[in-house]
Amino acid sequence: MPLSHLKKAGDAVFVDSYVTKAHEIVVPWDGKEVAPFSLIGAPLSKTSISHSGASFSPTVIRKMLSSYSTYAIEDDIDLKDVMVTDFGDILMHVTDLDESRNRIRNTIEELLSQHSNTIPIVLGGDHGISFPSISGFKKNKGKVGVIQFDAHHDLRNTVDGGRSNGTPFRSLIEQGIIDGENLIQIGIRNFSNSKPYSEYGHDHGVTIYTMRDVRQQGIEKIIEKSVNSLCEKVDAIYISVDMDVLDQAFAPGCPAIGPGGMDSMTLLDAISLLANEDKVQGMDIVEIDPTIDFRDMTSRIAAHIILTFLTNKQKAIV
Amino acid sequence: MPLSHLKKAGDAVFVDSYVTKAHEIVVPWDGKEVAPFSLIGAPLSKTSISHSGASFSPTVIRKMLSSYSTYAIEDDIDLKDVMVTDFGDILMHVTDLDESRNRIRNTIEELLSQHSNTIPIVLGGDHGISFPSISGFKKNKGKVGVIQFDAHHDLRNTVDGGRSNGTPFRSLIEQGIIDGENLIQIGIRNFSNSKPYSEYGHDHGVTIYTMRDVRQQGIEKIIEKSVNSLCEKVDAIYISVDMDVLDQAFAPGCPAIGPGGMDSMTLLDAISLLANEDKVQGMDIVEIDPTIDFRDMTSRIAAHIILTFLTNKQKAIV
Amino acid sequence: MPLSHLKKAGDAVFVDSYVTKAHEIVVPWDGKEVAPFSLIGAPLSKTSISHSGASFSPTVIRKMLSSYSTYAIEDDIDLKDVMVTDFGDILMHVTDLDESRNRIRNTIEELLSQHSNTIPIVLGGDHGISFPSISGFKKNKGKVGVIQFDAHHDLRNTVDGGRSNGTPFRSLIEQGIIDGENLIQIGIRNFSNSKPYSEYGHDHGVTIYTMRDVRQQGIEKIIEKSVNSLCEKVDAIYISVDMDVLDQAFAPGCPAIGPGGMDSMTLLDAISLLANEDKVQGMDIVEIDPTIDFRDMTSRIAAHIILTFLTNKQKAIV
Amino acid sequence: MPLSHLKKAGDAVFVDSYVTKAHEIVVPWDGKEVAPFSLIGAPLSKTSISHSGASFSPTVIRKMLSSYSTYAIEDDIDLKDVMVTDFGDILMHVTDLDESRNRIRNTIEELLSQHSNTIPIVLGGDHGISFPSISGFKKNKGKVGVIQFDAHHDLRNTVDGGRSNGTPFRSLIEQGIIDGENLIQIGIRNFSNSKPYSEYGHDHGVTIYTMRDVRQQGIEKIIEKSVNSLCEKVDAIYISVDMDVLDQAFAPGCPAIGPGGMDSMTLLDAISLLANEDKVQGMDIVEIDPTIDFRDMTSRIAAHIILTFLTNKQKAIV
Amino acid sequence: MPLSHLKKAGDAVFVDSYVTKAHEIVVPWDGKEVAPFSLIGAPLSKTSISHSGASFSPTVIRKMLSSYSTYAIEDDIDLKDVMVTDFGDILMHVTDLDESRNRIRNTIEELLSQHSNTIPIVLGGDHGISFPSISGFKKNKGKVGVIQFDAHHDLRNTVDGGRSNGTPFRSLIEQGIIDGENLIQIGIRNFSNSKPYSEYGHDHGVTIYTMRDVRQQGIEKIIEKSVNSLCEKVDAIYISVDMDVLDQAFAPGCPAIGPGGMDSMTLLDAISLLANEDKVQGMDIVEIDPTIDFRDMTSRIAAHIILTFLTNKQKAIV
Amino acid sequence: MPLSHLKKAGDAVFVDSYVTKAHEIVVPWDGKEVAPFSLIGAPLSKTSISHSGASFSPTVIRKMLSSYSTYAIEDDIDLKDVMVTDFGDILMHVTDLDESRNRIRNTIEELLSQHSNTIPIVLGGDHGISFPSISGFKKNKGKVGVIQFDAHHDLRNTVDGGRSNGTPFRSLIEQGIIDGENLIQIGIRNFSNSKPYSEYGHDHGVTIYTMRDVRQQGIEKIIEKSVNSLCEKVDAIYISVDMDVLDQAFAPGCPAIGPGGMDSMTLLDAISLLANEDKVQGMDIVEIDPTIDFRDMTSRIAAHIILTFLTNKQKAIV
Ligand SMILES: [Ca+2]
Ligand SMILES: [Ca+2]
Ligand SMILES: [Ca+2]
Ligand SMILES: [Ca+2]
Ligand SMILES: [Ca+2]
Ligand SMILES: [Ca+2]
Ligand SMILES: [Ca+2]
Ligand SMILES: [Ca+2]
Ligand SMILES: [Ca+2]
Ligand SMILES: [Ca+2]
Ligand SMILES: [Ca+2]
Ligand SMILES: [Ca+2]
Repeated sequence: MPLSHLKKAGDAVFVDSYVTKAHEIVVPWDGKEVAPFSLIGAPLSKTSISHSGASFSPTVIRKMLSSYSTYAIEDDIDLKDVMVTDFGDILMHVTDLDESRNRIRNTIEELLSQHSNTIPIVLGGDHGISFPSISGFKKNKGKVGVIQFDAHHDLRNTVDGGRSNGTPFRSLIEQGIIDGENLIQIGIRNFSNSKPYSEYGHDHGVTIYTMRDVRQQGIEKIIEKSVNSLCEKVDAIYISVDMDVLDQAFAPGCPAIGPGGMDSMTLLDAISLLANEDKVQGMDIVEIDPTIDFRDMTSRIAAHIILTFLTNKQKAIV
Repeated sequence: MPLSHLKKAGDAVFVDSYVTKAHEIVVPWDGKEVAPFSLIGAPLSKTSISHSGASFSPTVIRKMLSSYSTYAIEDDIDLKDVMVTDFGDILMHVTDLDESRNRIRNTIEELLSQHSNTIPIVLGGDHGISFPSISGFKKNKGKVGVIQFDAHHDLRNTVDGGRSNGTPFRSLIEQGIIDGENLIQIGIRNFSNSKPYSEYGHDHGVTIYTMRDVRQQGIEKIIEKSVNSLCEKVDAIYISVDMDVLDQAFAPGCPAIGPGGMDSMTLLDAISLLANEDKVQGMDIVEIDPTIDFRDMTSRIAAHIILTFLTNKQKAIV
Repeated sequence: MPLSHLKKAGDAVFVDSYVTKAHEIVVPWDGKEVAPFSLIGAPLSKTSISHSGASFSPTVIRKMLSSYSTYAIEDDIDLKDVMVTDFGDILMHVTDLDESRNRIRNTIEELLSQHSNTIPIVLGGDHGISFPSISGFKKNKGKVGVIQFDAHHDLRNTVDGGRSNGTPFRSLIEQGIIDGENLIQIGIRNFSNSKPYSEYGHDHGVTIYTMRDVRQQGIEKIIEKSVNSLCEKVDAIYISVDMDVLDQAFAPGCPAIGPGGMDSMTLLDAISLLANEDKVQGMDIVEIDPTIDFRDMTSRIAAHIILTFLTNKQKAIV
Repeated sequence: MPLSHLKKAGDAVFVDSYVTKAHEIVVPWDGKEVAPFSLIGAPLSKTSISHSGASFSPTVIRKMLSSYSTYAIEDDIDLKDVMVTDFGDILMHVTDLDESRNRIRNTIEELLSQHSNTIPIVLGGDHGISFPSISGFKKNKGKVGVIQFDAHHDLRNTVDGGRSNGTPFRSLIEQGIIDGENLIQIGIRNFSNSKPYSEYGHDHGVTIYTMRDVRQQGIEKIIEKSVNSLCEKVDAIYISVDMDVLDQAFAPGCPAIGPGGMDSMTLLDAISLLANEDKVQGMDIVEIDPTIDFRDMTSRIAAHIILTFLTNKQKAIV
Repeated sequence: MPLSHLKKAGDAVFVDSYVTKAHEIVVPWDGKEVAPFSLIGAPLSKTSISHSGASFSPTVIRKMLSSYSTYAIEDDIDLKDVMVTDFGDILMHVTDLDESRNRIRNTIEELLSQHSNTIPIVLGGDHGISFPSISGFKKNKGKVGVIQFDAHHDLRNTVDGGRSNGTPFRSLIEQGIIDGENLIQIGIRNFSNSKPYSEYGHDHGVTIYTMRDVRQQGIEKIIEKSVNSLCEKVDAIYISVDMDVLDQAFAPGCPAIGPGGMDSMTLLDAISLLANEDKVQGMDIVEIDPTIDFRDMTSRIAAHIILTFLTNKQKAIV
Repeated sequence: MPLSHLKKAGDAVFVDSYVTKAHEIVVPWDGKEVAPFSLIGAPLSKTSISHSGASFSPTVIRKMLSSYSTYAIEDDIDLKDVMVTDFGDILMHVTDLDESRNRIRNTIEELLSQHSNTIPIVLGGDHGISFPSISGFKKNKGKVGVIQFDAHHDLRNTVDGGRSNGTPFRSLIEQGIIDGENLIQIGIRNFSNSKPYSEYGHDHGVTIYTMRDVRQQGIEKIIEKSVNSLCEKVDAIYISVDMDVLDQAFAPGCPAIGPGGMDSMTLLDAISLLANEDKVQGMDIVEIDPTIDFRDMTSRIAAHIILTFLTNKQKAIV
């Protein structure tokens, strides 16, 4: 058995025969079969208002999955047989940002039109990707509700700087893709938004939970109210996780960090609760810039969000 | 309209016409009008016992203000019309540390004697600046009480190393500028002080709340007791915020970091409560060393402290 | 008195005559007297599955002790007269990892056989050192119980990669050094273990508290149950603190970091409670890699663990 | 004289009365007078093929000027009376990269049409800014020759990714703004270009000096030949300095670093020689990404390039 | 053509249709065909005397190849049709370092016995890998000469710490795999070796060129003498490149850095000259620790060494 | 032999029985015998004009000595029997900078008056230490000449900021400790000085060699002229090495870095030549700030300067 210890470049790492690493259940698409969950990278961050390397995030989040296992000991659920199809990354145009956004929308739309039962987990990129991603999602899902975890409204006007990472939910509302009433923002923070945009939100029926609300009401209560409210009105719910909803101490790798945010366990609890709900059919994770993070902490949380989501979806089935 | 896109060096940044950034309300002094709040930099850190770049902190805190907006959504208060006069920084002497300290005291004293209604927010520098700053404050304010957030007493003797960042409150007491009974220390930590200095504090009537007290009694209770106690005895209260009162996970940029400290939300809550009190008429923020911080996290909290203070002062008015 | 300001290289630091620094009570062994507490470095990390510089940790933890004082203000206990004998570090072999492990076991065994009343505090190194350390401890202490703080079981098989930092407790059980029933694991985390190893633990009677247990039951309750349970069955208890039991926001310097862990105050509370128990007669602190830490935060917590342990041992005496 | 030690925020730095710092001769434009030299920031780097923070470079280069003085001791020339007008930075559009490029071209064109005698020194930004900058320059200067210091040809096609930092000189040639015969590339490196683009250069008459040429012929000889050749054919020469012409050991802050490049003294010598030539009437400095540099080394060289250029222009006058 | 913009995870990067990137000619082994050049990773660095992450180097060097093109403009040679077979990495044992070394020797031996015409380029790892690598090489190549670029002799005894990265050439000589007379060391540096080991070298006929020799004689002369001398005596020459032969300013990522070393161009020149010689039939590149490098500079030089080697081998053919 | 593998904390490092590490010949002073060479740390950097951690430098330089051996292979000189007395560090006052300077002067003066035959090697600190160090040196050595390696004159006035790291040689001249004619400055750089201070130098007879002089005349020639000139006029020569004489690519850890400086080999060559001269009887090495260095590169060069100095002093004897 010659050359028996040679492994494909990058694969020569220790394997414990009794451990399944989380990346092992994420399988590159073979062009045919699609699993109940899909991973799609949308590495666009030139649309960011401030300098951002969020385009590196899909690669790093995938890599972080290899640092964790498939076993949720707290629920005794092993994800080792839960497959995830990795559709890879959407190639972005070097200089044409509209084209890049179109590619995201078309990819998500086509993917879901061909594989309607898979739940897409879209890895940004900056929050600008949620406009095309939810647009593509909406084409296949009827009336769509969105639960957005974010320190910011992202309801900026598009005149001042075009469609950026500050505008996705404004664009979605103004293009009629979602109704303001079906948008719920959780984790909105002091000194991170402007009054006119908060007013825009209120005027369009957006539900806004600030961090004070989260602290006073508790995340379980807020998620319960959110899910109940949306389930009556929409066909499918899409979760948009801007990691800067977390306090800077927990998510140091977001471009727009600050104090007063959520801790990571609260966010993971929210994800657990949301995954239990059948209508939750899509998710994106955005605004992680690995070039400014510390030891990929923020991407590690993203990996846990994905695994927590899968675990609770699985638990719901079982 | 030629050369229309040229902006002053450093000013060519995206402006959203519906957003007021916090630094926009901080206006350099024109030599005449003074707003209800004043910012003064005291970039002295050669008086630190250990190596410190806290002298860079005023610049960084000001810069961090430009990362946040003026809108406190949780109280629906927009600070965009609350003006702050920026008196700039006090020039420190390269090698004469006594002279530097004198300049701080004289500047605060003169500023308040000429503009008695403005609330000075002094940006250190190390904690050594509180001795001259409070000395200058005292000259204009009658009997002064101090609420000090700190892991340390800062009651060291001045024989061993002169007046340093370990001695300001000892100096204030011994110079008769404040009474020990009017000094309240919040957040004092295990293994961060010596018994003789704790005893010195007790002997001089200093009120000491350790971190265990903060955890057991809650910050609201402690602030309420502190304010009630001081208001009976003093004409004006000065808040001295040594950022190392925070746990190292929240404020990684202080020279003397450690575990077991306060989280940033607790500190911001304390500031909110204190700002409500009319007698609170001055504040300093010290011991941030931007050269060892991570992504200016600690200065970002300082910016939030300033904005939270302004918001609650404003709320008190409204 | 000529050359009076010269201090030994490295010792020319400011001394406040009223402050005892924690490193001052840690005295290098003179070959004779041994204090009630001993410090021993076990700088082995070539046994780590992933790249680790944990071998640098003993030096850094010792250095961090010099950043803190001996005074526990919250309990009014000053450790300045509590002596700790520093036995230095065990020299590791460059390439023979079995030999290195043997040296650790033999050193601990000999040390305790000669000085049976000292409590060894062993500074790793990676978690692989706990196998030889507890083996040596066991030789002198009769029936031994272990309380392990860890995100991971460390019950891996030794076939796939030999004895590593993933296998120590498996080795201890299989070599009959401890019974599974006398092993308590606290802080075990989702996606950080595999089902077969959890099952192995359950099959061998290991008590497992996950992070959800810690959050739901509280650390006091868990420690109380653990101590009560073990005290009935064993002669001596050894605490093994894998610092990755802490959340990545609190202990950024462990090789295997992630979200969802313990905060540092909870761990310090656990240590306080454990130190009160007479049968707790040994401790190790492992898995700190100073080369990837931020400002030695993780080693600072280790210093606080040691000081908290001493304080409460002292309190128990007083 | 009250408040006498207060300095404008950021200005409280030590001033030696016998030293003129280089930034003191760089004076913000007052809307009227324009000096013989102009500084213009073109902070565009979203056009980069790879992730780039070169947009931060104008600010950092300006700041680095404050680290150096005006005195060229080797030629006994003091620049303290040589004024430079700082036109500030051109505001870039957040998402419309064509618009950003147009703003650069229009600004340079208008600036030179209004102030034809000033020599513009344009601070990128990535190399994509040279296309609009030279286009604007050309409108006022007749036939233009370009001396490009670069490891790369930057003659890529514009079909694959639009106009990027890989295409500026191709665009200039194809738009007829410069003739290939009037483009001289110095410092072109192995494994940093593709054969088709080298052939494109040769086919269009571009003069190409590789690093081997620089080593074998010496920079003086190459500059002499370049200047002689161009002076016969063009009305004005524009120097385009891509800092990655330097070896990675000297310019660690360029996106596309590598070994085998020029040392910084050789580049400064080249600038000296070029500045002596009257027809050299414009310059840009590009491809410095301060976010990945070490201690702003690369921006420090840029500051020296500017000062060396001014010194030799001055020397030529005197 | 649905989902047309999706690329395999990690592959969604800009492609210029006229550029061949260097990594494109490095093709994973298909189990059958083997190209004239082979890449094999030997990620072993637990054998290092000091802490080393050199095991990460094969991955990083491969990645760096994607930053460069195949075109050597200075010789007008395009490597785009020169194929390199990537055999991937040899899996190392977690704790059995002898086993790891055996795997390296066996892999190289088997690879060359099956594919005798390919030139192996082995990527360390620390210098300890050269003992097994050259041992395996020797089995297929008859009498072997070695040209070692290194600041250090690596002739340490194996008693003190076993076979480490300080012992490979001693082991090779003592095991009779090479003769001391057929070992040439280039770049040996002051204060980086001990007299007994220099004497050992002299006693065994090793040819030693110090850095002073390199400066005084020039690298061309030394290479010429080395090649002439060896070609008479051996069947095949193996080049062992310890990157710490370079000055710390050029190769900041080696564990044992220092001043007074070679610059990178001199090393690349040496590689060019050596590649021209037919008998040069193998190479390793060792002692790059990417975890301590700056911007992968040292791995970038390694990539250039490989490409320079291929170019000159190709030139020799053409 | 129990506990046989325990080593004093920090000493458990691999020892090769055939290697002498450089730090082994540096022996802490026993209060009695003094070797021909002495090491004295002067950790003062609060006198720096800009923020500086040069006070950490003595510790780091000493540590770097342990990375190198005692053997100068190029001259076949082994320093293993050349002893150096380590007098440790002079304790600096926390806030009284005059006192700190006095301690330095008194220490050097007393040390040399008691041990007149030892050659002091003083490790700064910033360049401000050279004033007291040379003052103390002068008291014992008659007429003193100084050879200063520096990018800067350090001839600033003392009115603007007191005695700082910009004033030492002005102070020495004005206090009559050295004559301007006996001061030689080598490596003075463009844009790093002001004309009035260059004129001050010329007016006082200081010999100034700029970097252009170094490049054009060669360092050997300059050292030869310098030594010849001084030897006629003075009794003893003191070398003051400001590491910023080096180019930023070679010495990244100096506060005032820039391009256009010396490479490290040239500086080492200068030291070799100077050490040969009997009258060279003292040296300091200043302006290394380890907190901003990369991998202690600059301190590593300092270690080589010391070893090179010892080697050539030794060679002169032999
Ligand atoms: Ca957002
Ligand atoms: Ca956000
Ligand atoms: Ca304090
Ligand atoms: Ca404090
Ligand atoms: Ca463990
Ligand atoms: Ca663990
Ligand atoms: Ca270019
Ligand atoms: Ca380039
Ligand atoms: Ca070697
Ligand atoms: Ca070596
Ligand atoms: Ca100097
Ligand atoms: Ca200098």
